[in-house]
Amino acid sequence: MIEYYDISGCYILRPWAMSIWEIMQTFFDAEIKKMKIKNCYFPLFVSSGVLQKEKDHIEGFAPEVAWVTKSGESELEMPIAIRPTSETVMYPYFSKWIRGHRDLPLRLNQWCNVVRWEFSNPTPFIRSREFLWQEGHTAFATKEEADTEVLDILELYRRIYEEFLAVPVIKGKKSEHEKFAGGLYTTTVEAFVPNTGRGVQGATSHCLGQNFAKMFEINFENEKGEKAMVWQNSWAYTTRTIGVMIMVHGDDKGLVLPPKVASIQVIVIPVPYKDADTKGIFDACAATVKSLNESGIHAEADFRDNYSPGWKYSHWEMKGVPLRIEIGPKDYANNQVRAVRRDNSAKHDIPMADLVERVQDLLNNIQQSLFDVAKQKRDACIKVVHTWEEFVEALGQKKMILAPWCDEEAVEKDVKARTKGDMGAAKSLCSPFDQPELPEGTLCFASGKPAKKWTYWGRSY
Amino acid sequence: MIEYYDISGCYILRPWAMSIWEIMQTFFDAEIKKMKIKNCYFPLFVSSGVLQKEKDHIEGFAPEVAWVTKSGESELEMPIAIRPTSETVMYPYFSKWIRGHRDLPLRLNQWCNVVRWEFSNPTPFIRSREFLWQEGHTAFATKEEADTEVLDILELYRRIYEEFLAVPVIKGKKSEHEKFAGGLYTTTVEAFVPNTGRGVQGATSHCLGQNFAKMFEINFENEKGEKAMVWQNSWAYTTRTIGVMIMVHGDDKGLVLPPKVASIQVIVIPVPYKDADTKGIFDACAATVKSLNESGIHAEADFRDNYSPGWKYSHWEMKGVPLRIEIGPKDYANNQVRAVRRDNSAKHDIPMADLVERVQDLLNNIQQSLFDVAKQKRDACIKVVHTWEEFVEALGQKKMILAPWCDEEAVEKDVKARTKGDMGAAKSLCSPFDQPELPEGTLCFASGKPAKKWTYWGRSY
Repeated sequence: MIEYYDISGCYILRPWAMSIWEIMQTFFDAEIKKMKIKNCYFPLFVSSGVLQKEKDHIEGFAPEVAWVTKSGESELEMPIAIRPTSETVMYPYFSKWIRGHRDLPLRLNQWCNVVRWEFSNPTPFIRSREFLWQEGHTAFATKEEADTEVLDILELYRRIYEEFLAVPVIKGKKSEHEKFAGGLYTTTVEAFVPNTGRGVQGATSHCLGQNFAKMFEINFENEKGEKAMVWQNSWAYTTRTIGVMIMVHGDDKGLVLPPKVASIQVIVIPVPYKDADTKGIFDACAATVKSLNESGIHAEADFRDNYSPGWKYSHWEMKGVPLRIEIGPKDYANNQVRAVRRDNSAKHDIPMADLVERVQDLLNNIQQSLFDVAKQKRDACIKVVHTWEEFVEALGQKKMILAPWCDEEAVEKDVKARTKGDMGAAKSLCSPFDQPELPEGTLCFASGKPAKKWTYWGRSY
Repeated sequence: MIEYYDISGCYILRPWAMSIWEIMQTFFDAEIKKMKIKNCYFPLFVSSGVLQKEKDHIEGFAPEVAWVTKSGESELEMPIAIRPTSETVMYPYFSKWIRGHRDLPLRLNQWCNVVRWEFSNPTPFIRSREFLWQEGHTAFATKEEADTEVLDILELYRRIYEEFLAVPVIKGKKSEHEKFAGGLYTTTVEAFVPNTGRGVQGATSHCLGQNFAKMFEINFENEKGEKAMVWQNSWAYTTRTIGVMIMVHGDDKGLVLPPKVASIQVIVIPVPYKDADTKGIFDACAATVKSLNESGIHAEADFRDNYSPGWKYSHWEMKGVPLRIEIGPKDYANNQVRAVRRDNSAKHDIPMADLVERVQDLLNNIQQSLFDVAKQKRDACIKVVHTWEEFVEALGQKKMILAPWCDEEAVEKDVKARTKGDMGAAKSLCSPFDQPELPEGTLCFASGKPAKKWTYWGRSY
């Protein structure tokens, strides 16, 4: 999947990982094009003046910005920043391009790399100094249109996680403390990794409100001929998605890939035996691959003669291929194949006549089953608490904690301070859109003040 | 297409340009996948030690390398380079991944941005400090396999130019002086811009030989159990392709897009008249768009009520849309549409019954005709010369000059020195694979020594 690189915090995405990214990209790109969002490409570099235009925004990113100061042997006149995100790169041009209400909505997206030179615990996929993402930047005449898009995009992010990566996520809103620097509000899909007991921010869709519009003077003449300011959104998902998938599904044998994102969905392995008709078996493997490929299933055979079948089983299990097909002398004689699932090791003898249909069923079943199992495990980690004592106990048990909260920023800071330790502090993950009932008089788990909403808390990547 | 950016030499690719890039990308990506080349992603950053490992290579790129020296407020311990190309980024890992002959061939590609901080004449698309490209990097056991791939890829580049962009190119080999720094030989597709009388290197496919393999110790155990060194290629095409297309086809009215790369192939414009059935005309426009879209033709209607039909004609001509369909009262009454070609302004009345078929024919015809016209113009610029006097005269006439050459590097340097001037010096463009006969005793146009091959010369971007 990945190779460590000689610059700390940078990683090489090998083809096995890249193909997962490409499958998600194909899906998402087609969906946003249906929404009339158009792709573009803005420069990697930002001048320091523009970068610093929105105060809260730059405060959020400044410590992580990488600066180019030299080209060849020459010092640049002014240092130039590498984009940590492109709000300040793009919005001066939004201001230029948007004149009247007919120029709205302006809906752009780009697929690119960004750099955040973080020093804390680089982790492959999850926290790296350079990563790939898409970033959408849109401007609307009204807040209602912006609000609608925020949720439309969030739904696509949910689908990437749940339908493609088979990772259950919770849709919700970030706290004031955790929202995007300079934005109005941030929505998120939050995943959870039971093995480590940590939440992961899966992808975020922000309503920026009019803060950036004000700073970058993005105005338009509305239908009544009056000057008005646009409402903006930005939204992104990154290669982190792949890391979340790995952590949620992986087991002792290695990766487990959901069929929808596996570049090889079925690996076919000949299992010859000394007296057997080896050529017949190899031909049957080739024919199996051919039938599957013709039906749109991504299958390959491993015909290498310098590895044993057993070695190959382990190899492809480690790589996470969802389904293995073995063809040995008995299978060949009976005109059948043996299929072995990566997710639960279940074995199925399949007559050649039913091959395509049964394999397709198995792949669908694996996709659904991975999601169901992950959801069961995730749900088993959710703990509802009402008091600080219960909260601390649940945190010790590495739970994803749902607690009534007063929604005050000072209280969140206090929770962070009180839970500091080797494992890292707890923070709010999101207030789920799907709110359980909050009876009148319910108190905040942390402050004892009246609670305003249910919020998920936990340690997080 | 493009917007100038506040950092010199950087440009914004707007959706109209980006969609052309995406169409070429879809084609090329599918073709290389058929060749079993896999996509990956290596980091943007290179450590200075690795960058400097191949001497000729770094000499070629050093003056253009951008250096990151700071993150946030901290100085980095060691400056880090931004990739100008990824040979030195990737090959340490080729060395790690390749052990035996079964690991070969290793064929990788990545779609990414690169930075070359040039100071001479930044030009949109053609010469920019950051650009998008694909870069392929492959390793083989034998030179024969590498040689074959070099030409297979070059053929794809020819197809991008000729079949998609409708730009004629000449396939050939670069001189020693013009070849890729550190490589063995460079093949190229060369385009020519008649209006400016300049050649353009369209895309290059390099055989790197074993130079990098030696420096990065990329060895493998061959089938006989002996240690051997790999043969490598690298190849790339960039967003420059779009610039070449613009310069070759553009006219006084603006862009002219070949149908195959036009995100809107047909623009449908209602031409209402005061007494006419405006609703009927608008409905006919919508029905026209619907039929065309259902047949896979990219059509849109321009229903804006604040612009006149005439304004819309100019607007979409400027944007280069290959075919305009007008529907006015008479067309509506006669159940027909009027189609107007962007390339030659020819008008065609098309009965609604034949719409899809005729429009498809027209688009195919425009695609072919753009290529044919461009080739005629290009061919009219080719001048065969034998002497220095003829060469200088042809250069003055902004020709693409085909001349017999002794193939000596010193002579090429001398030609450059002797043609220096306001317009820029002449250089060799390529020695075409398709060589005219070179009778015994033919002399070099520049040195008077025996000529070894025919070579194209000219001023170049």
